[in-house]
Amino acid sequence: MLTPNMNYSHLKASYLFYNIAQKVKAYQAANPDAHILRLGIGDVSLPLCDAVIKGLHKAADDQANASTFNGYMPECGAPFLRKSIADYYRGRGVELGDDEVFVSSGASDELGDILDIFDSSNRSLIIEPAYPAYVDANIMAGREIVHLPSSRDNGFLPLPDEDISAELIYLCSPNNPTGAVFSKEQLKVWVDWANEHGSVILFDAAYEAFIEEEGMPHSIFEIEGARTCAIEICSLSKTAGFTGTRLGYTVIPKDLVRNGMNFNDMWVRNRTTKTNGVSYIIQRAACEVFTPEGQQQIHENINVYKNNARTLMKALDKLGIWYTGGKNAPYIWMECPNGMGSWEFFDKLLNEAQIVGTPGEGFGKCGEGYLRFSTFGSPEDTEKAAEKLLELLG
Amino acid sequence: MLTPNMNYSHLKASYLFYNIAQKVKAYQAANPDAHILRLGIGDVSLPLCDAVIKGLHKAADDQANASTFNGYMPECGAPFLRKSIADYYRGRGVELGDDEVFVSSGASDELGDILDIFDSSNRSLIIEPAYPAYVDANIMAGREIVHLPSSRDNGFLPLPDEDISAELIYLCSPNNPTGAVFSKEQLKVWVDWANEHGSVILFDAAYEAFIEEEGMPHSIFEIEGARTCAIEICSLSKTAGFTGTRLGYTVIPKDLVRNGMNFNDMWVRNRTTKTNGVSYIIQRAACEVFTPEGQQQIHENINVYKNNARTLMKALDKLGIWYTGGKNAPYIWMECPNGMGSWEFFDKLLNEAQIVGTPGEGFGKCGEGYLRFSTFGSPEDTEKAAEKLLELLG
Repeated sequence: MLTPNMNYSHLKASYLFYNIAQKVKAYQAANPDAHILRLGIGDVSLPLCDAVIKGLHKAADDQANASTFNGYMPECGAPFLRKSIADYYRGRGVELGDDEVFVSSGASDELGDILDIFDSSNRSLIIEPAYPAYVDANIMAGREIVHLPSSRDNGFLPLPDEDISAELIYLCSPNNPTGAVFSKEQLKVWVDWANEHGSVILFDAAYEAFIEEEGMPHSIFEIEGARTCAIEICSLSKTAGFTGTRLGYTVIPKDLVRNGMNFNDMWVRNRTTKTNGVSYIIQRAACEVFTPEGQQQIHENINVYKNNARTLMKALDKLGIWYTGGKNAPYIWMECPNGMGSWEFFDKLLNEAQIVGTPGEGFGKCGEGYLRFSTFGSPEDTEKAAEKLLELLG
Repeated sequence: MLTPNMNYSHLKASYLFYNIAQKVKAYQAANPDAHILRLGIGDVSLPLCDAVIKGLHKAADDQANASTFNGYMPECGAPFLRKSIADYYRGRGVELGDDEVFVSSGASDELGDILDIFDSSNRSLIIEPAYPAYVDANIMAGREIVHLPSSRDNGFLPLPDEDISAELIYLCSPNNPTGAVFSKEQLKVWVDWANEHGSVILFDAAYEAFIEEEGMPHSIFEIEGARTCAIEICSLSKTAGFTGTRLGYTVIPKDLVRNGMNFNDMWVRNRTTKTNGVSYIIQRAACEVFTPEGQQQIHENINVYKNNARTLMKALDKLGIWYTGGKNAPYIWMECPNGMGSWEFFDKLLNEAQIVGTPGEGFGKCGEGYLRFSTFGSPEDTEKAAEKLLELLG
């Protein structure tokens, strides 16, 4: 008799976004004329930029003719795209070999897949509040999870201490859901700690393009020592609106070795066994993101979202409400006013101001008492939401 | 100190296609004017059909406007595509719920990923010669592999007997590399055996569109009892030339349960945790494959490859060489003449006729003494190869 992976029975059903959707649906049914201001989900609203659209059409045309047609792509990524990405890092002072860059179908796909190269006996440290998939992917593999709660006291940016013991370290900076960003000095503490303990950092850099403060690290490889202890996972989902188009990339330095196993080699072996590469069409279009024209266009879109953030931050500042994020990230993580709980405040916002946020408690227990706003909505809705926040809480 | 997945150290380096490439390169260097006839690799040569190209352009246009833009796709597949695929099965008499169909990035991706829902204590039965990734993906998970060699005596279509003991059963029909196809009666024996032993069949149907004989099963779900013991993995790679465009689909019936765990539910949980779905653009274009226009166009392409198969089969028939495949599959699996070994015959073909095949030994030890021809090359090269085979071996 076949045995299923019984670790799946330890997963808790995640009702966060389902519960939100149900509440919003019920409200809309009871108030059919209400215009609901959706600042909950972290999905982009602006279309792909022109350079990428042109790239898609060009790539589709390539697939229409035998002389330009592309069959199987190299499993680790098309050379033209691996080079573009390595050049992008070089522009920020990080030297990578093209063969240290792997193309993926996106950060969430890669965050799930990459765990295959680690033994299931390793413990995974997850800073909470966190993207719920970090926890679930490790439960599926039967890994022990070390929860590291963060709080307003440390700006939701905790550092390691000698009480911590874990082999796989998840760091997400800029952070989802809090929007907090580790400084170079803070990341250096994590890198030194990981090298000292032989741990490996999985650095989720999906929101790096939203950093506006000079000197804040976009990549963990800006930190000395990271090449021997870190893997970086990145994505065009938020950078270039690829949530539904799908493309990401992963950096595995050739210096990352444990117990004689080189993780770059292992990942090559994994990809060549378990994939046949990412769609030529999507890789070709993604390449356009890294051209000067593409960079200008995606930053025009990012600025729309950043204006949304400024609009909301201005309102919270006026109200004297504590928050983090917004400046270097597309999320604002605010303390619920008057000691309200996450869901209590969620209900109040929905019922009294027709605003949808995401209750912080959905990202882990220590998120209770906070609410996340996404800045990916339309500017009109975000303006309206800011006005209503001022009315409701002022 | 982090522990790597040490199972990777048990993988043998696969030099098959690398060795072939090196030999071809050396020959070309020594004979710069030689036109090499490439019937080795199983990659398609014809461009995507018109309907799919139009679908790609239409989908790219959708992503250019906020009103038609698609962000995150449902993780298990776009409803429009799940429905198209379920309808495709219905046309062949197989009733499936749309939610029993999962969209993937391709069969190789899915064959790697799906193993996550099975415990690593299960033994995997692999009929050899086989697609090498079946073996490697299971070694990575630390699974014991039960090798079931097949031979000319059973037409490379072995059936289970009471000596066999394994929980995961790989069946690939039409087969890569042999091109052999299980009949309904033969598949029924496997299905009954799996149900009796509580095993689960992973049915790789990537070549189903090449079946031309009436009454041969395209899907394991044409067999009574399969809904309680089988998962089917399929792909548009060979069906519609998607090797570089990437799209596949997987059927997991809701009746497939072991130890109280429903595998359809488990796969939903896996996909929603470890992916954010397949690119909207590729899913929208893939939908065109299942329209009457798309079906006509892909079968025009398939017929080009089938003509290639007939050209080669005619030559082998004239030469009196035993082979299987070609009729219902894009591969021809031939016995090397005069008792030659796989690599010996490979060298002879390359050096004396400028033809590249794939040595059967590369698909497992019992493939020694055989050679695989792919029928995905150009008609001109295939004609030329057939002529040269007749000259060389006649």
